[in-house]
Amino acid sequence: MSKEIGITVKKADDLSEWYTQVVTKAELADYASMKGFMVIRPYGYAIWERIRGYLDRRFKETNHSNAYFPALIPEGFLKKEAAHFKGFTPEVFWVTHAGENALSERLAVRPTSETIVYDSYSKWVRSWRDLPILINLWNSVLRAEIAATRPFLRTSEFLWQEGHTAHATKEDADNEVMQILEIYRQLIEEEMAIPVLAGYKSEREKFVGALYTTTLEAMMPDGKAMQMGTSHNLGQNFSVPFEMKYLGKDEQVHYAWNTSWGVSWRMIGAMIMLHGDDRGLMIPPRIAPIQVVIVPIYYKAADADAVTNKARSVAKLLRESGLEVHVDFREQYTPGWKFNEWELKGVPLRLEIGPRDVEKSQVSLVRRDDSRRLAISDGMTLAEVERCLAEIQDNLFNRAKSSLEALIGQVSDYDQFKKILERGGFLRACWCSSGECEEAIKAETGATIRTLPLTDETTFSGCIRCGKPARKVAYFARSY
Amino acid sequence: MSKEIGITVKKADDLSEWYTQVVTKAELADYASMKGFMVIRPYGYAIWERIRGYLDRRFKETNHSNAYFPALIPEGFLKKEAAHFKGFTPEVFWVTHAGENALSERLAVRPTSETIVYDSYSKWVRSWRDLPILINLWNSVLRAEIAATRPFLRTSEFLWQEGHTAHATKEDADNEVMQILEIYRQLIEEEMAIPVLAGYKSEREKFVGALYTTTLEAMMPDGKAMQMGTSHNLGQNFSVPFEMKYLGKDEQVHYAWNTSWGVSWRMIGAMIMLHGDDRGLMIPPRIAPIQVVIVPIYYKAADADAVTNKARSVAKLLRESGLEVHVDFREQYTPGWKFNEWELKGVPLRLEIGPRDVEKSQVSLVRRDDSRRLAISDGMTLAEVERCLAEIQDNLFNRAKSSLEALIGQVSDYDQFKKILERGGFLRACWCSSGECEEAIKAETGATIRTLPLTDETTFSGCIRCGKPARKVAYFARSY
Repeated sequence: MSKEIGITVKKADDLSEWYTQVVTKAELADYASMKGFMVIRPYGYAIWERIRGYLDRRFKETNHSNAYFPALIPEGFLKKEAAHFKGFTPEVFWVTHAGENALSERLAVRPTSETIVYDSYSKWVRSWRDLPILINLWNSVLRAEIAATRPFLRTSEFLWQEGHTAHATKEDADNEVMQILEIYRQLIEEEMAIPVLAGYKSEREKFVGALYTTTLEAMMPDGKAMQMGTSHNLGQNFSVPFEMKYLGKDEQVHYAWNTSWGVSWRMIGAMIMLHGDDRGLMIPPRIAPIQVVIVPIYYKAADADAVTNKARSVAKLLRESGLEVHVDFREQYTPGWKFNEWELKGVPLRLEIGPRDVEKSQVSLVRRDDSRRLAISDGMTLAEVERCLAEIQDNLFNRAKSSLEALIGQVSDYDQFKKILERGGFLRACWCSSGECEEAIKAETGATIRTLPLTDETTFSGCIRCGKPARKVAYFARSY
Repeated sequence: MSKEIGITVKKADDLSEWYTQVVTKAELADYASMKGFMVIRPYGYAIWERIRGYLDRRFKETNHSNAYFPALIPEGFLKKEAAHFKGFTPEVFWVTHAGENALSERLAVRPTSETIVYDSYSKWVRSWRDLPILINLWNSVLRAEIAATRPFLRTSEFLWQEGHTAHATKEDADNEVMQILEIYRQLIEEEMAIPVLAGYKSEREKFVGALYTTTLEAMMPDGKAMQMGTSHNLGQNFSVPFEMKYLGKDEQVHYAWNTSWGVSWRMIGAMIMLHGDDRGLMIPPRIAPIQVVIVPIYYKAADADAVTNKARSVAKLLRESGLEVHVDFREQYTPGWKFNEWELKGVPLRLEIGPRDVEKSQVSLVRRDDSRRLAISDGMTLAEVERCLAEIQDNLFNRAKSSLEALIGQVSDYDQFKKILERGGFLRACWCSSGECEEAIKAETGATIRTLPLTDETTFSGCIRCGKPARKVAYFARSY
């Protein structure tokens, strides 16, 4: 592989440049001609399809249905919930004309769908019998980004799913919020091998219009946190202005309780950054569009048939067990070039099959995570491939978990806080719960409260900034 | 079922009102608050998911991959292909501001993606080794509709898929166009039970920017044609302005050849209109989100366990064979109410299970298409359900095929043409191939050329309008 095709910078030397090279050279995505927008290419989209497939199955198992709501939302809808409007308007793309005609009211290109969804729900909900409504949307949302584009992480449009539910009681809504947070956690930790801290957002950091927000926060190799997914209890903040009322079993009229929740392709960015190395991408097996690549190797025409036939039959065997297998039959590239390309693309396992492997009734297996090479006897191929994939999945998670743990520092002194923050990571610190201290910490250090533990942890000092009695343990960090 | 909930108008009396009632009362879709837009509700979206699942599988089997391109397209891109720009601008939604800031160039909310796709392809294609590119997009497109909204049929936004390919030669592009047209035909005829005429569009009716367009045309019960899907050879009309060039095996630089093709949720509209009856929807089994609904029936508490247990075990049996089964356990509705509701929703088969069925080791089966009722002995349930579903699928197609054939009239006289057109249907007529005659026929009768047969048919008279020697047999109709 030529220098131009491979990654030319070390991950530890320049994470940002390394990231950009991995995304573009592994053909996950490309920059669109308009600033802020990206094109997600087939290999990147295939990862999104794996994520989508997993979540879609989990949502349906928990009685959610998919639906579709319009891409354009009247300005008047956004204005109905004041904090929500104020939060989103600076980044809304506004449609003002249809053809030659000026519109009487501006339409927002969907920045999120709460308002338009609840406009419909208010028509559909009459009685307690109509609740709960459990709907998920797969779509894209647009929020103008002024800062430099970073594929998957900072773009003016991104693919995501947004769930919107309506319930009879706050308790039902609370349960929904937590059920979804747990599905997200399983996706992120078990499928994507990314360990996270789960918790609540502070008042300052919660979703605009929410009663409270729960979040999952990962830690990137440069010591900055990344928000992976959020699940919100919206209380009655939307049901009141949208008049989403129902007649209860008690014959009284009540406002419904709403939740919303979403994850986006940003998770792919975290996966790249966390697991990749100097050779490129490393995709956890459970989320990999290609789990096993088979490279047939022969230099003499006389060997071609035996080698390619064996490659085909191994592929068939593995596919029958549900594995995603690609056989690289291309003749214009050398085996060495192919090895480098599939390593760049992060395929977890490579099987090499040459004349000697045919002769010895074996295949040569190479792991992407630790480069170990094993000769596998023919009867053992499926079992060994499955074992290695499971081991790689665990290995990636355990590595990331160790890194995360090493990057959680407990501090009780503000000078120490600032010093450790330069190293990066989560800072576990006590907090008086005042917005003033939270605001001051951000202004003075750039760190925000990423999350407050789901179950309050015992305080161990006064507030990290003001020294007054602390009410909460919080996890601070700089973030993406 | 109360009058308010059931369909209150006969299909034959007022097709338009009947259609609206079926769409809204079967909860397929609802009108959004903004004129021209609709919300697709879970039951309607589930039909779209069946269509999408089928096509996605077929596209992948034929080596296509999915990707995602931005929802906003710079005005300058659209302008690069003049006919294309002229065709789309009257209906484009224009974004002029991001937050408070006026944009330097207007952005179109995606009316179709040819231009932005080819802007990227031109960067990706260098050599014949990079071809073909076979990419499909699942997204929504927006085209401002001034006429009254009709769910699935005339809306300012619709869900669809758009395929965009690049090839080395015209022949490769021709083959792609026909391969996709055949996949569409199989979806529409074999899955959706809608017979179609396949053929070419005339120059006047082809896609703006295409070399030629192929189409599949169905006939609705009111005698108007509906375009179900199109597949275009774009020639080099886009590759030249977008400079999509490649170095051939011959070491010369060539422009690529492109195709594009798409089907939308409009097919769902045709399915509703063609198969529905006075009781509501009738969904062909192969595309039905619920293929079998089971209604447990008991009036005495003592029967509850036996009946519900049998309902559950029959559901399990059918699901294990891959059937989509719903058991309606709701207690606040009577069995009669449920029968009406599931008929309104077009579920192909209903199984009723009461105490007598338990006693006699049978289930009672009712077909949606002909209301026939059968008692099925327990050992035969799966076989009989599968047989009935296959029969219903065939029956719906054969009925629709007979209607289509009855609505193809051959004419060689223009007065007769006008007279038969009032009855509706396709008019098979000879045509001199001039745009003038085509234009005049449209102005004088409202009929357009829906399609020209894939293989030229033998002319049997002079041109239907001018009487001069005819070059083509064409199928004319009024259309949706």
